[in-house]
Amino acid sequence: MTIYISGFRQYVFVVRASENGKGHRVNTVRIAILGASGYSGEELLRLLLRHPQATIRCITSRQNAGQPVGKVFPRFAEARLTFSAPDAAEIAKQADVAFLALPHGTAAEYALPLLRAGVRIIDISADFRLKDAGIYKKYYRAEHPAPELLKTAVYGLPERYREQIRDAQLVACPGCYPTSILLPTCPLLAARLVQTSGIAVASLSGVSGAGRKVELPYIFPECSESVRAYSVTGHRHLPEIEQELAAAAGLTEVAITFIPHLVPVNRGIHTTVILEPLPGCTAAAVGEALQKAYAGEPFIRLLGQGGLADTKHVTFTNMCEIGYVVDEHAGRILLSSAIDNLTKGAAGQAVQCMNIMCGYAESAGLL
Amino acid sequence: MTIYISGFRQYVFVVRASENGKGHRVNTVRIAILGASGYSGEELLRLLLRHPQATIRCITSRQNAGQPVGKVFPRFAEARLTFSAPDAAEIAKQADVAFLALPHGTAAEYALPLLRAGVRIIDISADFRLKDAGIYKKYYRAEHPAPELLKTAVYGLPERYREQIRDAQLVACPGCYPTSILLPTCPLLAARLVQTSGIAVASLSGVSGAGRKVELPYIFPECSESVRAYSVTGHRHLPEIEQELAAAAGLTEVAITFIPHLVPVNRGIHTTVILEPLPGCTAAAVGEALQKAYAGEPFIRLLGQGGLADTKHVTFTNMCEIGYVVDEHAGRILLSSAIDNLTKGAAGQAVQCMNIMCGYAESAGLL
Amino acid sequence: MTIYISGFRQYVFVVRASENGKGHRVNTVRIAILGASGYSGEELLRLLLRHPQATIRCITSRQNAGQPVGKVFPRFAEARLTFSAPDAAEIAKQADVAFLALPHGTAAEYALPLLRAGVRIIDISADFRLKDAGIYKKYYRAEHPAPELLKTAVYGLPERYREQIRDAQLVACPGCYPTSILLPTCPLLAARLVQTSGIAVASLSGVSGAGRKVELPYIFPECSESVRAYSVTGHRHLPEIEQELAAAAGLTEVAITFIPHLVPVNRGIHTTVILEPLPGCTAAAVGEALQKAYAGEPFIRLLGQGGLADTKHVTFTNMCEIGYVVDEHAGRILLSSAIDNLTKGAAGQAVQCMNIMCGYAESAGLL
Amino acid sequence: MTIYISGFRQYVFVVRASENGKGHRVNTVRIAILGASGYSGEELLRLLLRHPQATIRCITSRQNAGQPVGKVFPRFAEARLTFSAPDAAEIAKQADVAFLALPHGTAAEYALPLLRAGVRIIDISADFRLKDAGIYKKYYRAEHPAPELLKTAVYGLPERYREQIRDAQLVACPGCYPTSILLPTCPLLAARLVQTSGIAVASLSGVSGAGRKVELPYIFPECSESVRAYSVTGHRHLPEIEQELAAAAGLTEVAITFIPHLVPVNRGIHTTVILEPLPGCTAAAVGEALQKAYAGEPFIRLLGQGGLADTKHVTFTNMCEIGYVVDEHAGRILLSSAIDNLTKGAAGQAVQCMNIMCGYAESAGLL
Repeated sequence: MTIYISGFRQYVFVVRASENGKGHRVNTVRIAILGASGYSGEELLRLLLRHPQATIRCITSRQNAGQPVGKVFPRFAEARLTFSAPDAAEIAKQADVAFLALPHGTAAEYALPLLRAGVRIIDISADFRLKDAGIYKKYYRAEHPAPELLKTAVYGLPERYREQIRDAQLVACPGCYPTSILLPTCPLLAARLVQTSGIAVASLSGVSGAGRKVELPYIFPECSESVRAYSVTGHRHLPEIEQELAAAAGLTEVAITFIPHLVPVNRGIHTTVILEPLPGCTAAAVGEALQKAYAGEPFIRLLGQGGLADTKHVTFTNMCEIGYVVDEHAGRILLSSAIDNLTKGAAGQAVQCMNIMCGYAESAGLL
Repeated sequence: MTIYISGFRQYVFVVRASENGKGHRVNTVRIAILGASGYSGEELLRLLLRHPQATIRCITSRQNAGQPVGKVFPRFAEARLTFSAPDAAEIAKQADVAFLALPHGTAAEYALPLLRAGVRIIDISADFRLKDAGIYKKYYRAEHPAPELLKTAVYGLPERYREQIRDAQLVACPGCYPTSILLPTCPLLAARLVQTSGIAVASLSGVSGAGRKVELPYIFPECSESVRAYSVTGHRHLPEIEQELAAAAGLTEVAITFIPHLVPVNRGIHTTVILEPLPGCTAAAVGEALQKAYAGEPFIRLLGQGGLADTKHVTFTNMCEIGYVVDEHAGRILLSSAIDNLTKGAAGQAVQCMNIMCGYAESAGLL
Repeated sequence: MTIYISGFRQYVFVVRASENGKGHRVNTVRIAILGASGYSGEELLRLLLRHPQATIRCITSRQNAGQPVGKVFPRFAEARLTFSAPDAAEIAKQADVAFLALPHGTAAEYALPLLRAGVRIIDISADFRLKDAGIYKKYYRAEHPAPELLKTAVYGLPERYREQIRDAQLVACPGCYPTSILLPTCPLLAARLVQTSGIAVASLSGVSGAGRKVELPYIFPECSESVRAYSVTGHRHLPEIEQELAAAAGLTEVAITFIPHLVPVNRGIHTTVILEPLPGCTAAAVGEALQKAYAGEPFIRLLGQGGLADTKHVTFTNMCEIGYVVDEHAGRILLSSAIDNLTKGAAGQAVQCMNIMCGYAESAGLL
Repeated sequence: MTIYISGFRQYVFVVRASENGKGHRVNTVRIAILGASGYSGEELLRLLLRHPQATIRCITSRQNAGQPVGKVFPRFAEARLTFSAPDAAEIAKQADVAFLALPHGTAAEYALPLLRAGVRIIDISADFRLKDAGIYKKYYRAEHPAPELLKTAVYGLPERYREQIRDAQLVACPGCYPTSILLPTCPLLAARLVQTSGIAVASLSGVSGAGRKVELPYIFPECSESVRAYSVTGHRHLPEIEQELAAAAGLTEVAITFIPHLVPVNRGIHTTVILEPLPGCTAAAVGEALQKAYAGEPFIRLLGQGGLADTKHVTFTNMCEIGYVVDEHAGRILLSSAIDNLTKGAAGQAVQCMNIMCGYAESAGLL
């Protein structure tokens, strides 16, 4: 028996027939999406509706409970799914894996009963990304609702934690900014090519990165023809970035400068990381470190020396473009990356984690 | 036995095993794309690279001959295809079906030798849409390069010419505007619900509809914060629209008012058709005519009475949204439609035609 | 001698003085803007802060009372104005002319006491545009708050009602859509060149036309890459358009088809009017009718036969572009217009009315 | 006597006259704009057509010679100016001041004969910004066409070189990026509050910053939904920025990291400068240095500690917003600025220089 699943030609894979020759469907996973009416939820729907091995069993939205999915997202009108109010017991019956696309704080509340009921969790919120509940409290201005889970949660960045994700019960998907920063930077820190002090990052995000928020700064006339930096100190993604940069460098702490900007595109994050080289940090060494880290990765596109990323090349894909420049004039190393904030920066990465957790091809449903 | 899974859950389909029970891959088609470096070409690549039964064997671009596809479209860098200069003899060796995404005039030049060599043609240019070489000359200001082919060409609108497409050697895919206008209007004309005189159409197109043209009116600062009508008489899509409206109405001629606009979006066409009702043209009758025409169509989404289309709901899909309004105040029937100009308005529809021609599921690679 | 050069009030400088010491400033008008924190209010501020003869004495905003104008509109930070809660008695002390940039319903409530106190009113809301309180009730779903004023209100379209505006106590400025439709169409109706039945209008509006509304359909990710028609029957601007078209045609009633669209630009309205010609309606006759109506008008730009308007040419100006096309193919007359919805479509037209009411140059502060 | 001037030249009016009848117009300057068909030229037209003391006598464009200005820029159709081919002798007869909005290289060719003929030059190109012809050659890859003029040219940044501009014959207006970077940074360098090494700058520019260039990367579909950095080493504005930063710091050389980005807005530059503090660099000290440098400046808006600039607040104005943040977490000083690249970044600054050179109010025509 040959089962053939769509995608780029080069990632086609074949699942062999079972012993008894009785062709049966590949094994599938039953999915719940909590908080499915936001933009991350919409992107999860886009990806999972066409995923060959996932069956969406349940989508929740307190506000839209009872509504067919097409009322909120007309592009999915044919999908015949209906929003329900979130109910952990009911979800536990329906689903093997639950995606939490809920606000922080709320996500943790649902994680606990679902985990107890044996549902594996892929959390897109910020609730389980930080290892330190004290830092959570400082940046999110609230006690962590389930600090006991912080230790068991695995940071859902497959290119760095693939093995841990495989068996995780609780995966905490990185934020969109962190993904765009960690993927280019960690290999250089791990290879001791750059200093851990003086790291500066300029990131530019599309407006969907703010979520489906109905607030004055996000209405069209306020965003179009506007370019602005914001939260240049204390952005909530900052501690998560620093935690993972420190881990890559083998340190307990790193402090960086992080300048997020809002720019009038719908989707995409563009990041430039400015680093100070350590002795031996040549273009060749940087290229090698990235090659070594990412050769064979299905969702990393290395642009090489002089390569500069463009969100245009990655929107609606799970790809992360990474280029680098050795700037001898100013004595700096520049890293350039681009992702789609809703795909590799949220839902796509979550599905990538799901594929790993379920033993599917890592790119299933993502090409 | 072969199991093939793709797309929205509800469209999963199973191709049955051959008589001898020896599971083998579904048969595939070898594809050439001529003029693959424009936006229609890019969209063909996006769709065909993930199509389960198509293998792209050849992409041509005079300007980019020798370049890997990733140089022109970085998002396809992983595809490992290289542009070549178009060469009919070579293409005939490589491909079963050739998509012509060439300028009008040029397309016809390649069609003739390819057809002779047995390659089936799906033309996205305007060269074979009109039945009358005289009208071609009037609107395109040139003699038709291969008038003898006009009779055999089939108009590639599957919802109206599915049967003829099946066995066609030469399919002339409709333009983006015509698709958005004909799909809502033809059923009402065919059902004799509206008059054939006094038809007025306002269509709004994204800038990619102009092609990948490097001309002053299309640079960003000229398009952003600009809204403009253009070619309100004599637009090149006009005769094709009128030809097909007349055909639907059982007439030889119809003359309409067609107001195309350029608006600052990348993709999408939004159309409103204003019609004069004939006696008996109730909301129920309009709804019925549309239902009858499109029930079961995979790429038509009927929005019902009062439903208004939005390009936001259809971009990056092959779907056409259709709504209607019976305006009793002014005594008019309004039809509202939206498509993605590059998908249902060009490349997606071309792939839909290919699926029909090859006997594949009509939505293969399109969901 | 006094030399007075336009600009922000605070940079006005006075060069003293003629020999006889009689140097005196040109006479000025004291202004109140009610509802100054919306986009029409912002545009009024932009225009009136640099108006040579206007002094803004009072800006109101219930929500922002006590805030300096720069908190809400940083671009006016230097203006040193402070929002106050609206108080008719206080406004009457401070201002000669009050602009009402309030929601409909609310505007009428303030108009009455202000008029009684001798303040002249220029209303940008919809409250005094309709002559018939019954039609107001039908479209705005509320009893008119001050029906006795409907008779005295003058429709603030200077190109048609300049003389009545001069001495008006209450001017009701047209909506943005009506301005863009009436200016091209009325002269043809008045000249009996076109039929009054079968009029169809397609208008495309920027998002600021919806006001500074914090609602889901207006956030950036919902508007960008979206094109949509809305309210194709029963739009609130419809009765006002029909009232004035009927007046131009010398009729009591006209019923039209009006298709408003939302397109992703910030500012601007683009309109195409489709008309049926009466005998004698040649291109020359249309051109003459427009010339006769608008020769010498400072804010009408006639584009002539074949001329198509573009919002790009009029944004941030008080200009209305008007072109026309005699479409012999379909037997229609097409009119094309473009305005800035916030300037000629709201605040600019209001200032133009003020200039007329105060005996200033009509273009003072508007060039 | 009261003289009141406002608006487009054709509406300028003079209110006669003092008792003694000696009413005379304020003295005016005759202007030529060379290269008036680009975006800087368009902005010069916008500003100078309404400038109370400037009379545009001559606009040149090789490509559009003989065309009325309204053919190229319909928004100025009422201005009744006609493009001519550039002719230094003719210009010298017509104009007191010439603005050069020409490509680099070409500008220098015209500067020499015009200067000799006594015409004062305000150059918006890059030809006279650098003091060192060797550096010009390195970055512009051509010999400087008139190196002898480099010494006499004054860098046209009024906030730093106001006195030298007053009597200059040749003013070299800064580029758009340099303006946005130098204005916030120089005062801190001059006050020795920050280190001169390790300076990093992230700037985001609207597409009009690339000029009216008809090239593939600037067409709408390539720019919309795209965010990209470019020329992160060796950008042509870099040496000019470094030259002026060094001057402010009292050094001969400074090397910085400069990351320019292209973002899909039409107008505006947003800049963040990342600096390393020297001892004593408190928030108070930074605020004081900026206050001292810019108190009373008409075109600097200080946002104070924590203030972040937004291009939305400055487009279509000559204002530069400047805010700062002392980031104790990472030990950095962050400066934030925004300008309109075509106004304060080009044409507006040029007019500001003209006002200074002619002894007019510095903000004449700019408010």
